[in-house]
Amino acid sequence: MDKDIAALKDIALFKGLSPEKIQRIMKILRKVTFSVNEIIMREGDIGDTMYIILEGTVEVAKSIVIDDIDNEESEKNKVFTRLDGKQRAVFGEIALLEELRRTASVKAVTDCVMYEMKKDDFLKVAETDHELGYRILLNLGRIVSARLRRADEDTVKLTTALSIMLHEA
Amino acid sequence: MDKDIAALKDIALFKGLSPEKIQRIMKILRKVTFSVNEIIMREGDIGDTMYIILEGTVEVAKSIVIDDIDNEESEKNKVFTRLDGKQRAVFGEIALLEELRRTASVKAVTDCVMYEMKKDDFLKVAETDHELGYRILLNLGRIVSARLRRADEDTVKLTTALSIMLHEA
Repeated sequence: MDKDIAALKDIALFKGLSPEKIQRIMKILRKVTFSVNEIIMREGDIGDTMYIILEGTVEVAKSIVIDDIDNEESEKNKVFTRLDGKQRAVFGEIALLEELRRTASVKAVTDCVMYEMKKDDFLKVAETDHELGYRILLNLGRIVSARLRRADEDTVKLTTALSIMLHEA
Repeated sequence: MDKDIAALKDIALFKGLSPEKIQRIMKILRKVTFSVNEIIMREGDIGDTMYIILEGTVEVAKSIVIDDIDNEESEKNKVFTRLDGKQRAVFGEIALLEELRRTASVKAVTDCVMYEMKKDDFLKVAETDHELGYRILLNLGRIVSARLRRADEDTVKLTTALSIMLHEA
């Protein structure tokens, strides 16, 4: 138990939580395992679960639809990122706020051990312990705002590349 | 006062707050005015203030750096969005979470009346009233996740456009 608490307090999402609060959170975490090559989530599916990687590595893939009329095999391209247990990486965290379509697919590239947390369980605990809800949402907000910032930077890079090509065309 | 409370409870950021909680929030809101063409925030500046538009219209501009080596006048392009008081639009809300650089500039296109809320004032109230902090951060998280989703869609569109051009080149 104490070892598990130590593992959780290093996670950005749980920053600033007292050991008592971490113990409350632990009650709604479920340890799950995935085998190598197993699909953990599929882009487009509705999701209500967030994951914290304890051991192993996953690959995050986003499909980029290419409207390639000349090519019969109109394929979807993928952009990959890898996340692993060493960083105690978290994914699917938007699901804590709302049940929305997943914006990426995630696949285990090694055997993985994770904690999963369900939106309804989180909201139930947060409604009875507002301090816990407040601290986790403050951390979650900072994680999501960092991601928004990176997405903005990507948009600037892509627009710049597109402009250069239009100038050269 | 009652009219002001009615105006605030329609704002997505304050959804689910009781009239008592809205009254607490009102104590940290400051009414500010901007004249036509006045710059409200500059992209790149560090910001600690969120705004709620009560009256008037603003223009949001993001610079897109174009590395145009052939052209002496290497200009910055702008992408515009307009927000107005009718929607009780909110902007700069990431500043409630962290003091970061503004990702866009905002200019008044008419005379504007707004509420401003400072990060330190919000965090001070939220630390003493966790329920208030929790509810506002839940709403804020949903606003930011909707924005992240739109940024993701933009990335897909831009990547698709770029791929088509690369195929045609």
